Amino acid sequence: MNQRLHSFSQWLQEQHISFALITSTPNVFYLSGFYSDPHERLLALLVFPNEEPVIVCPQMEVEQAKHSGWAYSLIGYSDTDHPWELIANYLKKLALPIEKVAVEKSHLSLERYEQLHAYFTARSVLNAEEKLRQLRMIKDEKEIAILRQAAALADFGVEVGVQTIAEGKTELDIIATIEHELKKKGVREMSFATMVLTGEKTAAPHGVPDLTAIQQGDFVLFDLGVVLDGYCSDITRTVCFGKPTEEQKRIYETVLAAQQAAIAAAKPGAIVGAIDKAARQMIEEAGYGSYFTHRVGHGLGIEIHEYPSMNATNPMPLAQGMVFTIEPGIYVPSVGGVRIEDDVLITDTGVEVLTNYPKELIIL
Amino acid sequence: MNQRLHSFSQWLQEQHISFALITSTPNVFYLSGFYSDPHERLLALLVFPNEEPVIVCPQMEVEQAKHSGWAYSLIGYSDTDHPWELIANYLKKLALPIEKVAVEKSHLSLERYEQLHAYFTARSVLNAEEKLRQLRMIKDEKEIAILRQAAALADFGVEVGVQTIAEGKTELDIIATIEHELKKKGVREMSFATMVLTGEKTAAPHGVPDLTAIQQGDFVLFDLGVVLDGYCSDITRTVCFGKPTEEQKRIYETVLAAQQAAIAAAKPGAIVGAIDKAARQMIEEAGYGSYFTHRVGHGLGIEIHEYPSMNATNPMPLAQGMVFTIEPGIYVPSVGGVRIEDDVLITDTGVEVLTNYPKELIIL
Repeated sequence: MNQRLHSFSQWLQEQHISFALITSTPNVFYLSGFYSDPHERLLALLVFPNEEPVIVCPQMEVEQAKHSGWAYSLIGYSDTDHPWELIANYLKKLALPIEKVAVEKSHLSLERYEQLHAYFTARSVLNAEEKLRQLRMIKDEKEIAILRQAAALADFGVEVGVQTIAEGKTELDIIATIEHELKKKGVREMSFATMVLTGEKTAAPHGVPDLTAIQQGDFVLFDLGVVLDGYCSDITRTVCFGKPTEEQKRIYETVLAAQQAAIAAAKPGAIVGAIDKAARQMIEEAGYGSYFTHRVGHGLGIEIHEYPSMNATNPMPLAQGMVFTIEPGIYVPSVGGVRIEDDVLITDTGVEVLTNYPKELIIL
Repeated sequence: MNQRLHSFSQWLQEQHISFALITSTPNVFYLSGFYSDPHERLLALLVFPNEEPVIVCPQMEVEQAKHSGWAYSLIGYSDTDHPWELIANYLKKLALPIEKVAVEKSHLSLERYEQLHAYFTARSVLNAEEKLRQLRMIKDEKEIAILRQAAALADFGVEVGVQTIAEGKTELDIIATIEHELKKKGVREMSFATMVLTGEKTAAPHGVPDLTAIQQGDFVLFDLGVVLDGYCSDITRTVCFGKPTEEQKRIYETVLAAQQAAIAAAKPGAIVGAIDKAARQMIEEAGYGSYFTHRVGHGLGIEIHEYPSMNATNPMPLAQGMVFTIEPGIYVPSVGGVRIEDDVLITDTGVEVLTNYPKELIIL
């Protein structure tokens, strides 16, 4: 059994859980290596404390599951089968006492829960999500290698975007060029809707790109990432088209100093909240505290937002193998906004910055 | 109250339901006009049999909800509020007896259900989804106007794609050009991952585009659509790069005749299953029956797949205002595949085809 399944199985043993029914695409992928989104159809990975795991999926995906390296049992079902019945029969053969069952409570729908309940009258239904978040938080060597490559593609995306900037180009023009060049490198999916914002629109942390054209004196903000082999990257850079004002320069230098301070604070044993505070303090001291309206970052991996949540009140100590973003920003309404974001990895002694596009203020 | 809310509210009355808690982005949008995806945060629309509806959303989205035209109550909550508590207090003020509650059972997570359950010990929890699917199935004039425009943009996407075809161009090259030209027209989102497949890859109905380059004699299959004002379009066309073989021509003409037969059969009162059969019969008679491996189409609207499901066993009669795809295909392994797909609207007397890109075999 792979290390991830082994760790999860051990947790089931410790908690005296009869079995776990894992149905979300990211967690099934994490534990099994099989990436599948069968939409309304059931995908399930059953993990036991002392038995081999089994995947339940539509019949037409069975070959793909084997191809992904799954070496254990597979239950394929057709559109006329009842997958819950097949699961019940499988469990009956194992003759396990079913008392505590673990599921993903924020993912399992009430409809699925009622189906489960019709077949298994478990004494209690626990949530497996916290444990899975903790396991996924520490990346292994294979994951880190993919995340490094995904970050390099994000760097390339920003590079293309910066080169594309010209008077009159629209936000959507630039996004199209970035995504085109990434597709040429084989990127099939962005990790979220690519953001290019110009001028005053940069002051909205969740602004929506449209046909607004770039003008002299605009900040241009890029926030983008790719999905590579199931893992996400995420980078933000802000550049200036034409000569920046003194205020624009001050905002930029403050965000950059804050971002560098947060990176400098990141190492094994440092408290998550302290990373947020390292950035926030510099921004507050520069008088922009009320314009830094979000947490300093988020964990990154199979999903674009995972553990750890990099917020001021998180008391968790950082540990080797964690990957997260550091992305302070200052957003001044009707002036503009700056955000600078890197993906970082906690190493045995400190931090490795995975995204490498330059951060000194670029004036075009 | 708008017609949609009114119809839904009436159903609650008939079913003696105390209130409905609607939490999925598409259904909240359909009933309220407010489009919002607050991710892990709660978005809820409460609808009552005899009271005015209320939206519950993060505080930072309250202005956006008003801006979208919502004229009833709004409960905004901050990250330190407990939204369920706010809902409970609101209901307490209404002093309604809470007996039956309706939710979306395939959408509401077990976690949310447990939170709901902690505040309301409803005697029974019903599923509101079937009713909402039925309401959404019949499009009103406003929806039809948007769907027509979305279909025209899909036509344009195929036109760009066909013009881009050239020896050596890759599938991802062509997708990038299509999406770039659509972005120039202000399209921010495709309704699903754009598909361009070439050569033998066209034989996989769910093939994945990559860096495969177009070669002489290839079928090139486009399957794409846009999201416009919250509504989806969906078109498929297949063209031939270079002179087609006799078999390619026969496959193409069979699919085209089948698609036209299905369109001809579509009118108010016709049974859904008969539309599927009209296409399937022509394909079977040409000897390709076993290569038409999916239903003839699907309903289309706020979601890319909605009611009616256009399959052979669906006994539902078509009615004015239904919008769905008609998309038969023939997929012959190691030869190639052809699919032709239009979006159609059932009118008072027959059918209006919304997508209009030419369907005679285009040879480039």
